Amino acid sequence: MAILDISVTPVGTGEASISSFVAETCKVVKDMGLKYQVTPTGTVIEGDLDSLMKAASTMHHMPFNRGANRVITNITIDDRHDKRETMESSVQAVVKNI
Amino acid sequence: MAILDISVTPVGTGEASISSFVAETCKVVKDMGLKYQVTPTGTVIEGDLDSLMKAASTMHHMPFNRGANRVITNITIDDRHDKRETMESSVQAVVKNI
Amino acid sequence: MAILDISVTPVGTGEASISSFVAETCKVVKDMGLKYQVTPTGTVIEGDLDSLMKAASTMHHMPFNRGANRVITNITIDDRHDKRETMESSVQAVVKNI
Amino acid sequence: MAILDISVTPVGTGEASISSFVAETCKVVKDMGLKYQVTPTGTVIEGDLDSLMKAASTMHHMPFNRGANRVITNITIDDRHDKRETMESSVQAVVKNI
Repeated sequence: MAILDISVTPVGTGEASISSFVAETCKVVKDMGLKYQVTPTGTVIEGDLDSLMKAASTMHHMPFNRGANRVITNITIDDRHDKRETMESSVQAVVKNI
Repeated sequence: MAILDISVTPVGTGEASISSFVAETCKVVKDMGLKYQVTPTGTVIEGDLDSLMKAASTMHHMPFNRGANRVITNITIDDRHDKRETMESSVQAVVKNI
Repeated sequence: MAILDISVTPVGTGEASISSFVAETCKVVKDMGLKYQVTPTGTVIEGDLDSLMKAASTMHHMPFNRGANRVITNITIDDRHDKRETMESSVQAVVKNI
Repeated sequence: MAILDISVTPVGTGEASISSFVAETCKVVKDMGLKYQVTPTGTVIEGDLDSLMKAASTMHHMPFNRGANRVITNITIDDRHDKRETMESSVQAVVKNI
């Protein structure tokens, strides 16, 4: 069980808006049945590492299907083996101490 | 008005948990009166770029005050000049299309 | 052919130095026969996307084999389909215009 | 003394190539007299944290001067207080162990 944060950015599309591209990448995650959360700068997904990496690859490819010539994707993987960590527990661990 | 996503990671602290450090960095943002949101992998902040960069610098310094010897900080700035973008509008623009 | 930049950070190891961990991750890339370059903040690799993602997964796992309980990995994928891009050509395209 | 890795990406420019934009951001660093290195995915800079953050802000602004409507900038700061770290020493510490 790990957490992956991903931002997929199509470059050179001629439009500053990328939300429709990002929505397409989220559908990939939804269809894979993974738990996810849309943030202001990306998408956070929870699952085993293999599923997360597979989702990330598929999400990265999506904008090419819609005509983009270049895609820059940023991924952060947060992976703990000493305890079970979820998207919700990660946020709560911080928020309770603010 | 821009959006900044920041993850501050103290390295070499001897403990896998970093939530208490992250909570300290969020207090910085709270004290500056900036709008923020804690995500599973970082903190997203909304404001003018100068305030955001000042917040990021201060947040980055916090773990050193608590004994960390090394801090690795990742920042993403998303900045649009063609329209007013907020944390909420960014998420909604994606979610409505999923 | 794409370019992947990766930083693998073990968290909670008790030591601020992470270079021996990073060197282990580079050996993975070397053993896979992929072209790579060590930068001050990470490792850049060149290859087809599947190989790059496989390398990234294996690199991310390495610190756990050496006792780390948490690993935070940052990955950037730069992928162009309109032209062949290499690590060298990417740098040259910038440097010649400075 | 810290190390900062920055990637400035103009979005919606209509062209997949961003090297001329990146070259402009490097001129900022050069003009500030900071030591820097162009990598296949970004620019690495060495200096005190205040100078680095000032450079990052100025670099982030550059594409707007050339007509971009949106800029997404990724920054990594690697900062050690237990020892003096340079771009060169960081690479050497890894390379000698591969």
